[in-house]
Amino acid sequence: MIPDDIKNRIRDIVGAENALDSDLDRFGYSYDASFVPLFPANKPELVVRPATTDEVSRIMAVACEHGIPVTPRGAATGRTGGSIPLKGGISMSLERMTKILELDVNNMMVWAEAGVRTIDLYNACAARGLFYPPDPASWKFSTIGGNVAENAGGMRAVKYGVTSNYVMGLEVVLADGSVLLTGGKAIKNVTGYNLTSLFTGSEGTLGIITKALLRLIPMPKKRGTLQLMFRTLDDGCNTIHQMLQSGLLPAAAEIMDRFCLEAVAKHRKTEHDPAIGCCIIVEIDGEDDAALEAQARKMEAVARQCGVYRFRVAQSQQESDELWAIRRGLSSAIASLVPNRLGEDISVPRDAFPEVVRRISAIAEKHKLTIAVYGHAGDGNIHPSILCDLSKPGEEERVHRAVEELFDATLAVGGTLSGEHGIGITKRPYIAKALGEAGVKALAAVKQALDPKGILNPGKIW
Amino acid sequence: MIPDDIKNRIRDIVGAENALDSDLDRFGYSYDASFVPLFPANKPELVVRPATTDEVSRIMAVACEHGIPVTPRGAATGRTGGSIPLKGGISMSLERMTKILELDVNNMMVWAEAGVRTIDLYNACAARGLFYPPDPASWKFSTIGGNVAENAGGMRAVKYGVTSNYVMGLEVVLADGSVLLTGGKAIKNVTGYNLTSLFTGSEGTLGIITKALLRLIPMPKKRGTLQLMFRTLDDGCNTIHQMLQSGLLPAAAEIMDRFCLEAVAKHRKTEHDPAIGCCIIVEIDGEDDAALEAQARKMEAVARQCGVYRFRVAQSQQESDELWAIRRGLSSAIASLVPNRLGEDISVPRDAFPEVVRRISAIAEKHKLTIAVYGHAGDGNIHPSILCDLSKPGEEERVHRAVEELFDATLAVGGTLSGEHGIGITKRPYIAKALGEAGVKALAAVKQALDPKGILNPGKIW
Repeated sequence: MIPDDIKNRIRDIVGAENALDSDLDRFGYSYDASFVPLFPANKPELVVRPATTDEVSRIMAVACEHGIPVTPRGAATGRTGGSIPLKGGISMSLERMTKILELDVNNMMVWAEAGVRTIDLYNACAARGLFYPPDPASWKFSTIGGNVAENAGGMRAVKYGVTSNYVMGLEVVLADGSVLLTGGKAIKNVTGYNLTSLFTGSEGTLGIITKALLRLIPMPKKRGTLQLMFRTLDDGCNTIHQMLQSGLLPAAAEIMDRFCLEAVAKHRKTEHDPAIGCCIIVEIDGEDDAALEAQARKMEAVARQCGVYRFRVAQSQQESDELWAIRRGLSSAIASLVPNRLGEDISVPRDAFPEVVRRISAIAEKHKLTIAVYGHAGDGNIHPSILCDLSKPGEEERVHRAVEELFDATLAVGGTLSGEHGIGITKRPYIAKALGEAGVKALAAVKQALDPKGILNPGKIW
Repeated sequence: MIPDDIKNRIRDIVGAENALDSDLDRFGYSYDASFVPLFPANKPELVVRPATTDEVSRIMAVACEHGIPVTPRGAATGRTGGSIPLKGGISMSLERMTKILELDVNNMMVWAEAGVRTIDLYNACAARGLFYPPDPASWKFSTIGGNVAENAGGMRAVKYGVTSNYVMGLEVVLADGSVLLTGGKAIKNVTGYNLTSLFTGSEGTLGIITKALLRLIPMPKKRGTLQLMFRTLDDGCNTIHQMLQSGLLPAAAEIMDRFCLEAVAKHRKTEHDPAIGCCIIVEIDGEDDAALEAQARKMEAVARQCGVYRFRVAQSQQESDELWAIRRGLSSAIASLVPNRLGEDISVPRDAFPEVVRRISAIAEKHKLTIAVYGHAGDGNIHPSILCDLSKPGEEERVHRAVEELFDATLAVGGTLSGEHGIGITKRPYIAKALGEAGVKALAAVKQALDPKGILNPGKIW
């Protein structure tokens, strides 16, 4: 319990209107977009909404002095419980730190506060002809601080990489309240350990990210969309594989299995051609129409060699939007079929994609569950979606066992527990299996070094 | 002093022929390619040359038990003293671990032991149509382990990034002898902290890198060379800047100032056109001749707009080799002018290149020194070369003051102490200035966590 005098000290720092402790406010900050149950609610004792790094620093100094848990929070769009204040204490919401501090067009970099929404950053840069590529599905709501803390991915990762590929430097408030600056605008920088990468993806357990310096690239001038239909998932995987081997880089390559396609058809009240077992939507980008056409032609040649069933190039923005609507509508289409849906986020070596999908099918069959498979074909990041009805007796237990076997299958083919969602609460039980004893020990040593009292986002990762 | 019984325990692990302690052997492992004086020699007490990870692990267990310093060593081509056994103890040479363990063509990745030479790795991959881009100047001698430990850069960084951009996973022997595996072949991976990036560039102070998993890309099919001559360095910088802004990415862009060009002309017994104050050699690569030609045309258009004095496209391999010979011969050309030469490795935000060069000129003038400027224009990584004669009274002191002012100027424009050479011994006195108190404290905390006895490469970084 945070004593009243300490609450008052924090109120003095941020103002009473930004240190909330009503039951309703606390409930509002108790959950995120993960499958962690809403009840019993993981309510913080106090919601704190600082406006400046200095306020964050002073709050952390108080928290450190009194050993109060602090859970940082962006937009709570995370999928693994990263921003849930599992141990109570303070929910440190960065929602008021929404300034784009400097858009440095010359160096193609931008300094943004943690609470800036990803889409706002994207738009501000796009207005100057610059491109911030990371596009997590939640990008219209999620914040830069959360993206960095979780090392968010997205559809464009196959060509452009993930958030960590764009973080040049960070301002981080450490557990004791001290303010650390890492990295900088020098592109090549080997001065000291790479703390920027250490904090990126550390899920709020090593420090509170208050500002990020992000690298930008020139905005591609043209974009195009292709739709590739295959008889089998193997054909689809092989096509993407052959494209990448020959140096063809899709800006996105979203793959869907037969079940997904049937679900979408049902949802959209259209017919699904039963010959089609796999669909890939590909985005391409480039300098001009000629460059796009050349890419599309080369991709078609590869696809034909790999036995594509149907190859289509969107001829207009409208057609392109229609093709993407299939992928965008997927999540709701699947969700509408069943009461519950558990979305996973495994990541495997690219060539293990077909093998892990076969193993997933076997797991589904064994546990009499339906598991829809879709994901980012180009980088081996798969989102298997377990369809279930948790009100059925024994179903939860079956789903639980299936997830465990799913992770085993992933690790067996050389994959990992999470491609872009993080470990948080939900994958915590499996991390020792993934990293081994030496790995967990090394993580714990780093955590102990930077947060000796264990006050930063306790209960996460391991 | 390492007692004889412990030396014998180590001999039992690696064999007597791989645990050397003659005075000559110890001297052979006392220096590297840095400017750290040869005498008094920093000789290790024992040179150990393990052949396997297991041997490294067992040696570390012994060293840890007895608190013996261990300095890992690749080919000792480092420029800041990273492999010099400053505190005696063991020089752990990875020279016998030279196996390329797996070239995974499907996933475009390669597992290599630490002692594999960079050029051998490059060639093995190239034979399968795959490209390992990092090309530190020492790549014909340097090893992958050393490249990873120092996060080596090179000329191709402007387009392809540095070593860290290719490290997918590592096998590291920790201070206590335990063996840690980080990362893996899954391209998107957010399971736990990014230890791969933490060890990359840690200069042997956190663990002994024994194996590396490196990402490859398809080998560009064609390469071409351009030579751009400018009246001023500002014109040259501006041209590269405009190219990058418009999305044109040179595979390399090496810039040289007037002094460098005069030195090369003198060395090659040719005439230097006094109107030329700057030369940039650009490498381009692409799919085919048409792609190269299109790039060259666009680059020429940008260069003309920026007032290029002379623009030349190499028409043959021979002509290309001749153009690159200017850059390759630069180091010896400069070295032949004076008894001593101190090469630095600062890195600044791209747009600060002209400003920092102006400041370097002022420093040279103030201290009556000649400082030649060349470097990697596209990424702001500059190698100022201080020409001097250390036998002259007071010269060493003047050089020392100039270096200090050089670092101050670099930091003042938002740059950093090292772009690709590391901190090692030689830049250690300046690191607090660069990282600040919180930065050095965070580094020390991480070091303490992973190497509590401080036996790994003591005396380096800070």
